[in-house]
Amino acid sequence: MSKPWEGIIEIPIEGRTSKPRQTGIAMVIDKGLGVRRLEDLIEMSGEYIDVIKLTFGTSAFYDEALLKRKNRMITEANIDVMPGGTFLEVAVWQKVFDEYLDRTKDLGFSAVEISDGTIEIDGKTRQDIIKKSRDKNFKVITEVGKKDPKEALPISLMHQLIREDMENGAFKVIIEAREAGKGVGIFDTEGKVRDEEIENIIAGVEDTNCLIWEAPLKNQQQALILRFGVNVNLGNIPADEILALEALRQGVRGDTLKKAYLERKEWTR
Amino acid sequence: MSKPWEGIIEIPIEGRTSKPRQTGIAMVIDKGLGVRRLEDLIEMSGEYIDVIKLTFGTSAFYDEALLKRKNRMITEANIDVMPGGTFLEVAVWQKVFDEYLDRTKDLGFSAVEISDGTIEIDGKTRQDIIKKSRDKNFKVITEVGKKDPKEALPISLMHQLIREDMENGAFKVIIEAREAGKGVGIFDTEGKVRDEEIENIIAGVEDTNCLIWEAPLKNQQQALILRFGVNVNLGNIPADEILALEALRQGVRGDTLKKAYLERKEWTR
Amino acid sequence: MSKPWEGIIEIPIEGRTSKPRQTGIAMVIDKGLGVRRLEDLIEMSGEYIDVIKLTFGTSAFYDEALLKRKNRMITEANIDVMPGGTFLEVAVWQKVFDEYLDRTKDLGFSAVEISDGTIEIDGKTRQDIIKKSRDKNFKVITEVGKKDPKEALPISLMHQLIREDMENGAFKVIIEAREAGKGVGIFDTEGKVRDEEIENIIAGVEDTNCLIWEAPLKNQQQALILRFGVNVNLGNIPADEILALEALRQGVRGDTLKKAYLERKEWTR
Repeated sequence: MSKPWEGIIEIPIEGRTSKPRQTGIAMVIDKGLGVRRLEDLIEMSGEYIDVIKLTFGTSAFYDEALLKRKNRMITEANIDVMPGGTFLEVAVWQKVFDEYLDRTKDLGFSAVEISDGTIEIDGKTRQDIIKKSRDKNFKVITEVGKKDPKEALPISLMHQLIREDMENGAFKVIIEAREAGKGVGIFDTEGKVRDEEIENIIAGVEDTNCLIWEAPLKNQQQALILRFGVNVNLGNIPADEILALEALRQGVRGDTLKKAYLERKEWTR
Repeated sequence: MSKPWEGIIEIPIEGRTSKPRQTGIAMVIDKGLGVRRLEDLIEMSGEYIDVIKLTFGTSAFYDEALLKRKNRMITEANIDVMPGGTFLEVAVWQKVFDEYLDRTKDLGFSAVEISDGTIEIDGKTRQDIIKKSRDKNFKVITEVGKKDPKEALPISLMHQLIREDMENGAFKVIIEAREAGKGVGIFDTEGKVRDEEIENIIAGVEDTNCLIWEAPLKNQQQALILRFGVNVNLGNIPADEILALEALRQGVRGDTLKKAYLERKEWTR
Repeated sequence: MSKPWEGIIEIPIEGRTSKPRQTGIAMVIDKGLGVRRLEDLIEMSGEYIDVIKLTFGTSAFYDEALLKRKNRMITEANIDVMPGGTFLEVAVWQKVFDEYLDRTKDLGFSAVEISDGTIEIDGKTRQDIIKKSRDKNFKVITEVGKKDPKEALPISLMHQLIREDMENGAFKVIIEAREAGKGVGIFDTEGKVRDEEIENIIAGVEDTNCLIWEAPLKNQQQALILRFGVNVNLGNIPADEILALEALRQGVRGDTLKKAYLERKEWTR
């Protein structure tokens, strides 16, 4: 597809990856988009979306035919689709993980999110689940972090989980921030970025490209792009914000444009 | 319609009602959804929506044919539809209530919201309006509470209105919280729930199932579900949040799942 | 198109303009609406929208055919469409303004937004750009104000820019408030209106009808309607809020209805 301003405007921040992406992932949070809105989303910005998460247990309340239809629309657009990790936690709690995984495949999901944000899952079970999911050819995206800030993980355990998950075949590891992005993980109660938390996390991670940062709010996306660059992996992006995020990544939106401009006031071709 | 995970995952919080519901009502606030988006909404989550309110006086600015078309789509999906109570208040103020009610019927509305959040309406007029609306076969949903927090009703008057409204045929009584859910009624200026206000209200109400709590924000929905259970009646739910609310009610979203999990760690079938 | 309640309810706040409007402009901010949602928007509220801005540089990431299709849909509904001013600033910075303007015409835009919120543009260049855009038959909407609050313009310079822009053919001048409407220009960090800033701005402006106030939040729209009347020009309105804004302007929503009611409790025809 040709771009409207190609050959005239140069993109200020270069190096953006294209599909299929290993870095620069955008994961969209879907709380129940209808098929017309999904068509709109794919048509307008499908090339900038890598994963769609049908978040929490929302997919349990879909009509089954409609769920299959959505999953087909998404995967045909070369986007991965997964149920929310919370729902997988329920399956583990209810001791029906194997049946859950088979059904997830039948329903047309291409990926699974493996988390323990609410339910306790011991380390061995976690790695078993990852391996089983890989064996069934799912793209595996794991998550570290608790939904309840009072249960925050020790940083050394977080490092260990990230390492083990990647060794066992995870595609990426998500850093939990919930849908709201406030008062959890790297964000304070107002949603501002706690820089020292970020540095603590990456201090024990070999390759920061293995991380997906949940960052629903614009100031969070901006801070992470400024810290890690155009191709930082970002999650829990609202569907309506995908093109705005792309503008932010590539420097044609106030905040990142400003930085590019200050570094290179005299533009030469 | 069959559900995607039926027979595999059990719903952690049981007892959810189905249509036509007497309790567990969800009322959606509609500020001008187009017909494609409405089709999406009905297809994705129609069975979890009981009432749609075309809020404020927004319906006055519709094209008439389009309004009739929306009302038909909604009622054919077994959902009630009503104009905002504010608009009815304007009719009362302008002394055209009877003509207003006839027109409301012609336009295809199935319900009316009767409030006095902005305009003063004396007690006798209020009950007359309720009875007239019942006589024309409207589902009647009344509202107590003022939009301006400086005019908060004495609690004894609130109790009296709820009792009289129900006696005269109201289906439910809404507890006002505006579209924003902040600084009014049971919510403080940041939208947090004021527990003592809730307890004051229900202290004088025979059956709390007669109340619909306006609760646009997730923390509010969560607090009310935890207080009153899976089938609490909730209003002013944004259209995009209906499935997320259902996940919250039924315990497949972090916050209510956590409670269910702590009560029953060893899941047995 | 006939209105559903015409002949029964009188609009409490009279004098609303209709298209083509010189005052009472509503400018919608579009971060990537799909065509189905755009059809919905036009069908539901096209007559209340005067300008749509494809904000920031988002249009750079569209498929070209899709952009042309959207622009055609918008202009055929008698709505102006323009790229975000930020994107024009990039063109000026990269010294390709003339090519940019030609391409903008080819792509089907009817208007341009001329700003210097991020990139420095000297006064002479600014006026040249305005004149060139007028010469190509674009509707020209300029903007004053910096995106970074630390760079706030001296008020006298702001007055001078507004005067010069209008003299050189601008249709309106936007007062910058960003997408979020917080911590910039006339709004404090919580989005509350700073009345003295408004008064400072209008003190040096001959006709306040030449200004469009960016006001994404409801309390901001309300304050500006109460200050300037039903036909104040407002910008950065979210697409989903257009009918709610119309209800607010015309006094069939709590906040402006209250004022109309207090002024005229005894309604007579």
